[in-house]
Amino acid sequence: MATLGTANPIVVEVTRGGMVESRHRAAVAVVDPDGKVVHGWGDIERPVYGRSAIKPLQALPLIETGAADRFRVSVAETALACASHSGEPRHVELVGAWLARIGCDVADLECGSHLPYHEASLEALLRSGRHPDATYNNCSGKHSGFLSTARHLGEPTKGYIRYEHPVQQRILGTLEQMCGLRLGDAPRGVDGCGIPVIGIPLGNFAMAMARLADPSDLPPARAAAAQRILAAMAAEPFLVAGTGRFCTKVMEVIGKKVVLKTGAEGVYAAALPTLGLGVAIKVDDGAGRAAEAAMGKVLRHLRLLTADEERALADALTPPIRNRVGLETGRVRPASDSPF
Amino acid sequence: MATLGTANPIVVEVTRGGMVESRHRAAVAVVDPDGKVVHGWGDIERPVYGRSAIKPLQALPLIETGAADRFRVSVAETALACASHSGEPRHVELVGAWLARIGCDVADLECGSHLPYHEASLEALLRSGRHPDATYNNCSGKHSGFLSTARHLGEPTKGYIRYEHPVQQRILGTLEQMCGLRLGDAPRGVDGCGIPVIGIPLGNFAMAMARLADPSDLPPARAAAAQRILAAMAAEPFLVAGTGRFCTKVMEVIGKKVVLKTGAEGVYAAALPTLGLGVAIKVDDGAGRAAEAAMGKVLRHLRLLTADEERALADALTPPIRNRVGLETGRVRPASDSPF
Repeated sequence: MATLGTANPIVVEVTRGGMVESRHRAAVAVVDPDGKVVHGWGDIERPVYGRSAIKPLQALPLIETGAADRFRVSVAETALACASHSGEPRHVELVGAWLARIGCDVADLECGSHLPYHEASLEALLRSGRHPDATYNNCSGKHSGFLSTARHLGEPTKGYIRYEHPVQQRILGTLEQMCGLRLGDAPRGVDGCGIPVIGIPLGNFAMAMARLADPSDLPPARAAAAQRILAAMAAEPFLVAGTGRFCTKVMEVIGKKVVLKTGAEGVYAAALPTLGLGVAIKVDDGAGRAAEAAMGKVLRHLRLLTADEERALADALTPPIRNRVGLETGRVRPASDSPF
Repeated sequence: MATLGTANPIVVEVTRGGMVESRHRAAVAVVDPDGKVVHGWGDIERPVYGRSAIKPLQALPLIETGAADRFRVSVAETALACASHSGEPRHVELVGAWLARIGCDVADLECGSHLPYHEASLEALLRSGRHPDATYNNCSGKHSGFLSTARHLGEPTKGYIRYEHPVQQRILGTLEQMCGLRLGDAPRGVDGCGIPVIGIPLGNFAMAMARLADPSDLPPARAAAAQRILAAMAAEPFLVAGTGRFCTKVMEVIGKKVVLKTGAEGVYAAALPTLGLGVAIKVDDGAGRAAEAAMGKVLRHLRLLTADEERALADALTPPIRNRVGLETGRVRPASDSPF
């Protein structure tokens, strides 16, 4: 493993015409549920914020506390609790209906709002004269899950995003158990949607994903919650992200073998149930395009894709870059000197 | 200077709460008009595509051929010829009027279209039921300059973006003289707006910017064109980029001491007339946020900013990262282990 200060390997390159134009470095951890490092490229001991890639772990209390059963949280809503959705109509409508069922509304969401990621939905919204509210926030499903848990346990909903709130403290405890380390003194900050982010070594984050993938050694309630979360994400790949997004495309093509979740600043996580492994990737510079290409390469390295699946996913695994008139001018691809 | 294969230095870091979340590496060249390397951090011999940062050099033929005088190209239009504008109303209106004056219209632009970078302009456009045409392309001013030159010299306007077209061959010759090297065999590709991009070593690109800044050894017509271009950019910083953009904010505050131009994939260039130097930056991973922070640090390193100017530009030099409710969650800043 690289020592601190050593440069992480170059894993992704961006071509344009006859030249590599840009390069991305990353650390990649592939770990089993006991913490055995199957692959560790780069510095996997450095703490990273999991950002939205950690959402499947943050959803465990929604199931474990009984909130999901109490409020009849559907498979679709469970997938949305783990989503960074694109703000397409179905995402937004489902979140609105879920909030209503738990006796909340958009005003209870503390995530703020932003325009949809999905350009056609953004255009339709603006052309219709409407404005995005907090249900359009890509994290609105996760926040609906938080509100559901608070409602179920009789906790105040106001301030549910704060580090000290029981919702966030419950998640912290869950992360400690899944990642196998104390996090009380871990570096922390605030996420784009207002909740805490906790610095966790990349290898420990991958181990937590492995424990979702193979929950056989987890307590029964947590194991059942892990299986329900992965099954929901695999069943509803559109709801986990949206039209054209990498998470969605890969899960639509390869099904339950890989459950994927993207995060901001070049983080990507995967639970691999058939192998009983977890994957965590952090691109040094925070580029999502590189995290996707690196994840694609890891999946191929682990022989998780059939030849047919690779063909079906060719433009997701090494995406073309197109100019303003649609001409392909380059590609994002695994680096020629990538270690994997 | 770093040898090929050595990692470029980390020059910019992105903080969130108690931790550095992401890091960017770059090469930075500060060079004089004779090619003397005043500062060379990282590998400045590796070819880079100048992308839009090279526009001030691409505008030289517009002036030198007499096209600008023939068509009474204004100071504002000259700035737009060097711009990556945000598609705000004034940008778009000026380009439309310019095209009409040379007997062209939007259908002659071969750059394609895209939604305005400026979010309020994007919203206003869509809410009004309109669609962006090619005048909204951030490169539409540059393309209007190309069309002006072709019109003036009686060349076909169709295909003016192609490598073989006289407009592009004229620019290639200009770049060869300004960069001090033959480019016929240089790596090349196609830019986002359809024109050729040419791989040029970063140090040579910086030297070309220095020759704009101090054109005393250039042939008189080229020297006059260089001065006219820099004067126009300094006089119209809004037209070079747009509301809230780094190029615009810095030039609005510090005036003619620094003429700046951003480019895609983490490229940034500057001409420094008071020092007679040129600067070229390429962020390895292509991140614009890092190129801006690195450029800000270079300008401070060269003592080009007064204390008042530094204060006025604080949020441009080390920009805050805000979450969806406006809370500051981190900063983009020069790295603690940056070499400059």
